[in-house]
Amino acid sequence: MKNGNHSLLEAFNNTTYQVSGHGKRNVQVLKDAFDDADGNMNSDMYGNGKPIEEFQEKMAKYLGKPSAVFFPSGTMAQQIALRIWCDRIGIKKVAYHPLSHLEIHEQDGLKQLHHIETVLLADKERTIELEDVLNMKEDVACVLLELPQREIGGQLPTYEDLEAISAHCRAKGIKLHLDGARLFEILPYYRKTASEICGLFDSVYVSLYKGIGGIAGAILAGDEDFTSESKIWKRRHGGDLISLYPYILSADKYFDQRVSKMDTYYEGAKELAELFNECHAISTKPSIPVSNMFHVHADMPKERFESALTSVHEQSGIGISPYVNSTSDTACYLEISIGDRYEAIPKAELKKALRLLDETMKKLFR
Amino acid sequence: MKNGNHSLLEAFNNTTYQVSGHGKRNVQVLKDAFDDADGNMNSDMYGNGKPIEEFQEKMAKYLGKPSAVFFPSGTMAQQIALRIWCDRIGIKKVAYHPLSHLEIHEQDGLKQLHHIETVLLADKERTIELEDVLNMKEDVACVLLELPQREIGGQLPTYEDLEAISAHCRAKGIKLHLDGARLFEILPYYRKTASEICGLFDSVYVSLYKGIGGIAGAILAGDEDFTSESKIWKRRHGGDLISLYPYILSADKYFDQRVSKMDTYYEGAKELAELFNECHAISTKPSIPVSNMFHVHADMPKERFESALTSVHEQSGIGISPYVNSTSDTACYLEISIGDRYEAIPKAELKKALRLLDETMKKLFR
Repeated sequence: MKNGNHSLLEAFNNTTYQVSGHGKRNVQVLKDAFDDADGNMNSDMYGNGKPIEEFQEKMAKYLGKPSAVFFPSGTMAQQIALRIWCDRIGIKKVAYHPLSHLEIHEQDGLKQLHHIETVLLADKERTIELEDVLNMKEDVACVLLELPQREIGGQLPTYEDLEAISAHCRAKGIKLHLDGARLFEILPYYRKTASEICGLFDSVYVSLYKGIGGIAGAILAGDEDFTSESKIWKRRHGGDLISLYPYILSADKYFDQRVSKMDTYYEGAKELAELFNECHAISTKPSIPVSNMFHVHADMPKERFESALTSVHEQSGIGISPYVNSTSDTACYLEISIGDRYEAIPKAELKKALRLLDETMKKLFR
Repeated sequence: MKNGNHSLLEAFNNTTYQVSGHGKRNVQVLKDAFDDADGNMNSDMYGNGKPIEEFQEKMAKYLGKPSAVFFPSGTMAQQIALRIWCDRIGIKKVAYHPLSHLEIHEQDGLKQLHHIETVLLADKERTIELEDVLNMKEDVACVLLELPQREIGGQLPTYEDLEAISAHCRAKGIKLHLDGARLFEILPYYRKTASEICGLFDSVYVSLYKGIGGIAGAILAGDEDFTSESKIWKRRHGGDLISLYPYILSADKYFDQRVSKMDTYYEGAKELAELFNECHAISTKPSIPVSNMFHVHADMPKERFESALTSVHEQSGIGISPYVNSTSDTACYLEISIGDRYEAIPKAELKKALRLLDETMKKLFR
């Protein structure tokens, strides 16, 4: 919880409904995850065995790739993917967005462990477009695209741009890697299958605890020789655990439960963004969401928005967010990710809460 | 399962009792681990939160170190410990045993990810002694001692040697790291507390799924500034998962359940080794175990010993090992690690099984 505000967090924790997520991340989730699993099923052992092999095959098929490997984290999976491509091409340089997870959330693991240099494409406010890739002056082994671009509210390039970037990279011998932390969540907007989108990329990472709502874990998919090499690097990183089955079994269960609900989450995000955009001094980014997520920006200092939210939480019983991030001294934002919880909120109460937010914001501006 | 023999594995899986381990590593272990946990307890979040912080404090206290960090694996924890010491001292070289886990089981992660060179101390047949450290010609940042040395049957140096190595390293400004994958298991032999042994080392790793019998996971302990830095590297390695609580809760539960049983496991190992040493063409290493583990060496090719074991499994219902490792064309060995299962075997049946092994070995030598 970054930039935590105690009153806001407490008020949020006391609400009856919450707009984001699938539910609490507590021990009950673990109990539920293994409740109906067969007690006699053996654990995976260092990357082998039924639970991991079957799930990897299932995910490879879903993503339309020859092979898939389960990783404890996306951080590990993606550094390894980029390392493999750099070694293959013989260039220790990759290109990605300035707000890529690798650039801002991984303590520079890619540079510190793999000595890979980075070229930052596009600017912080928008997604990478075809022009950015065409105008790239430096030779890189790989371009990484994050779909949707999380740190700017989950924006997406057009599908035509994606296809053109893919064709260009293929023609130039540049590998294209998909940071698909939220791949499932963008399928309804693009109206494509996962397999169609992954077909544009040489390697693909997907997360299993965001839209899918597992405990933790990730999948890295690609050709057989790519995934075989990734297993060696998984061992080197310390990610080839004796047992990953708590993550695998829960990912498998929640994948089956939620992968078909991405359309519902997407529709919910559009509906809720519209309600936020009716509020004073508030706007969403994107203005119309293209996935289950968006950012809510407020034209006021973080502390004032926190007190507005605290008040709305207390009065409405509906939790909007447990935290707010500062954009500048006079602006701030929070992130919304629609999951199972959203459907459970009575629509009339939700609208009342948003009207209350509107009024609270107006009062603060008086 | 390395060098797997199908008949042996099948016969082993059909036995009623098994001499090694705590039990099956199956889904039931997960169900049991979380059964009596409070459903409302929240998950850890990226290394913070009650379950991880409380367990880390508990382990720091037990190990007698100011601070401890939970890691998904020992591979990750130990590479990071050595990296920190190399950076501190300004020498990218460490010394350890030729059969160290880092040298033979980690796909050279230490070299490939951290570019750390290694000096191999002692030879493959014995543990590192004071003389080896005194005679070391190269400058190293850190010496790593594995107690007990697993790949040679779990041998230990004398405690006096340990103290002398520690004093020497401290005097010379060389950091001393403990690979304590089986630290709990050696306390009965040394008649020392974990804290006393750890006091000889600058940093300590312990495993939570061997003698303790958790699902997976490790602890790295040391001074506050050391463990703080290790958390940054944990993030870089991709080990700072959103949720590690399946491993933490099970480690905590099984630590409480088993840490006081190490003496029983140790006594069991000595008793069983004696029975093996009465068998024809069989000897244990060490001849008298110094922990819960030992190796059983047979003077015959692996395939013949496998068929002897298969026959004993089928006739006695007692499982000795699901696999055998080759030492040479005419010799082989298997590993025994005593846990909860050993106590459950009726002593008369156990002795009958070992007598049967003796007779079978004699027949094979005719």
